[in-house]
Amino acid sequence: MGLVADSGPAREALLDGEARFVERREVRFQDIDAAGIVFFPRLVEYLHDAYVAFLAARGCPLPPVLASGSWAAPIRHVEAEFLRPLRFGDSVEVALVGAAVRETEFTLGYRIAAGGRAAAIGRTLHVTVDRTSFRRIPLPEALAEALRTLG
Amino acid sequence: MGLVADSGPAREALLDGEARFVERREVRFQDIDAAGIVFFPRLVEYLHDAYVAFLAARGCPLPPVLASGSWAAPIRHVEAEFLRPLRFGDSVEVALVGAAVRETEFTLGYRIAAGGRAAAIGRTLHVTVDRTSFRRIPLPEALAEALRTLG
Amino acid sequence: MGLVADSGPAREALLDGEARFVERREVRFQDIDAAGIVFFPRLVEYLHDAYVAFLAARGCPLPPVLASGSWAAPIRHVEAEFLRPLRFGDSVEVALVGAAVRETEFTLGYRIAAGGRAAAIGRTLHVTVDRTSFRRIPLPEALAEALRTLG
Amino acid sequence: MGLVADSGPAREALLDGEARFVERREVRFQDIDAAGIVFFPRLVEYLHDAYVAFLAARGCPLPPVLASGSWAAPIRHVEAEFLRPLRFGDSVEVALVGAAVRETEFTLGYRIAAGGRAAAIGRTLHVTVDRTSFRRIPLPEALAEALRTLG
Repeated sequence: MGLVADSGPAREALLDGEARFVERREVRFQDIDAAGIVFFPRLVEYLHDAYVAFLAARGCPLPPVLASGSWAAPIRHVEAEFLRPLRFGDSVEVALVGAAVRETEFTLGYRIAAGGRAAAIGRTLHVTVDRTSFRRIPLPEALAEALRTLG
Repeated sequence: MGLVADSGPAREALLDGEARFVERREVRFQDIDAAGIVFFPRLVEYLHDAYVAFLAARGCPLPPVLASGSWAAPIRHVEAEFLRPLRFGDSVEVALVGAAVRETEFTLGYRIAAGGRAAAIGRTLHVTVDRTSFRRIPLPEALAEALRTLG
Repeated sequence: MGLVADSGPAREALLDGEARFVERREVRFQDIDAAGIVFFPRLVEYLHDAYVAFLAARGCPLPPVLASGSWAAPIRHVEAEFLRPLRFGDSVEVALVGAAVRETEFTLGYRIAAGGRAAAIGRTLHVTVDRTSFRRIPLPEALAEALRTLG
Repeated sequence: MGLVADSGPAREALLDGEARFVERREVRFQDIDAAGIVFFPRLVEYLHDAYVAFLAARGCPLPPVLASGSWAAPIRHVEAEFLRPLRFGDSVEVALVGAAVRETEFTLGYRIAAGGRAAAIGRTLHVTVDRTSFRRIPLPEALAEALRTLG
């Protein structure tokens, strides 16, 4: 059982579901660790990078929200499963493959693929809060609209 | 349900269980993100740093294993829950609070605390493999012995 | 006087010289530090990322060199000057703006620009060595050819 | 010639001068890059980490300055020379070995040593500015006092 109740995309959906947004990138020289493969927290960063790129592409870019917005969507829970090691120079596709939206939180599903095969899958659970009070608030409309494109 | 079957320490044990190994550190200047709090993958790194320090303290340091050993213990799954934001300069204690050891894998439980209160908890699932074939092997004795000190 | 003798592109050339290779990117959420601007070693990483991309684009990709090559080009010296702060979401162009090639080493010049204005400039000095003995060797031809395109 | 006029500690002083403040640390698993040695921008981070630790130890901790102070000391120039590769698990001493203080800026000198031998040396040039206007201001007294202990 996960650390928090999960209502996000199921494992099978992460492995095989349709990619709704894709960010292509290459494994960087410095993403490698002393074991010669990608350091796993770097892959967690890849998930967040795709989330940031997705929001920008769907009309809800984070920089102005952080500069002058009234809300934030901090991550409450993250989970990732690593299926195959990745190495320097590997071309990967980081995909958002689904979302589960609730009143004051949402879960996103991700798949990192290389050569057409899943190398990692993951989920992030975000809560929407007021920037000042840090109390939970309903999802802002611009964010909710962006998430609806994830099907 | 988590992405993989978990048999590690339960959420309550992570929150309240006895710390079996503790690494003290301060949140670094560069661990902060554009939202002004610690970037969550940095906390995942904190977990791994504590794991590396734990192995060194318990007679199974990783550097010689990586340099000339026959085994590796890559991470198959990671999960973390973030309870309170951390900021630059915060003093934190990263604790290993339990382990579940199986034949060819093990799960470690972690708690990051600041000011005596849990700020994050997490679990990592490692599989033990042969360095050359990448096939699963039983836990090497030095590793198994270190993990037994986690109770 | 710099820490090592510099024979690379002069400061004016870095500020105003023609960009010979450009990598476009956006400042990431996690590149920001506790002072709210890009943490300066991240900009040093940007320089190296552009170097890796440049070599790949010019027919001398590093991944196969590291996997099975006989040479390496470790960095002996780095220098960077920061002219304007960069913030989350800023679009930047990281340009290689010149090179100075000697028998067993080379210096590369860089400019990071945002909004058409230089935000940082830098230089890296690489030495070419044998992977096994770590002794200096003349520049491999594939590398020398790539560097010639920097004018 | 360096990118900006240097009036900081000379190269010989960095190599052989007395360490005025030392931070001990071990090379982390994730500080390694695809070439199997420490990624050089990580060593630049080590310099900054030592600077942050030095200020805290000398009565001028940065976190409250950033939270509510009126000044900042952004880095205008950094330079580092790498003498020997460092590997995962290496114990290193990061030392501040001198300072040159001017009216609205200061240069710090650093040495990273492993096994009693210098592995890298570096310098950072900071300018002191008003947090709001970003205009240069004389060094705040708490900062100037801390720097005087560097001789």
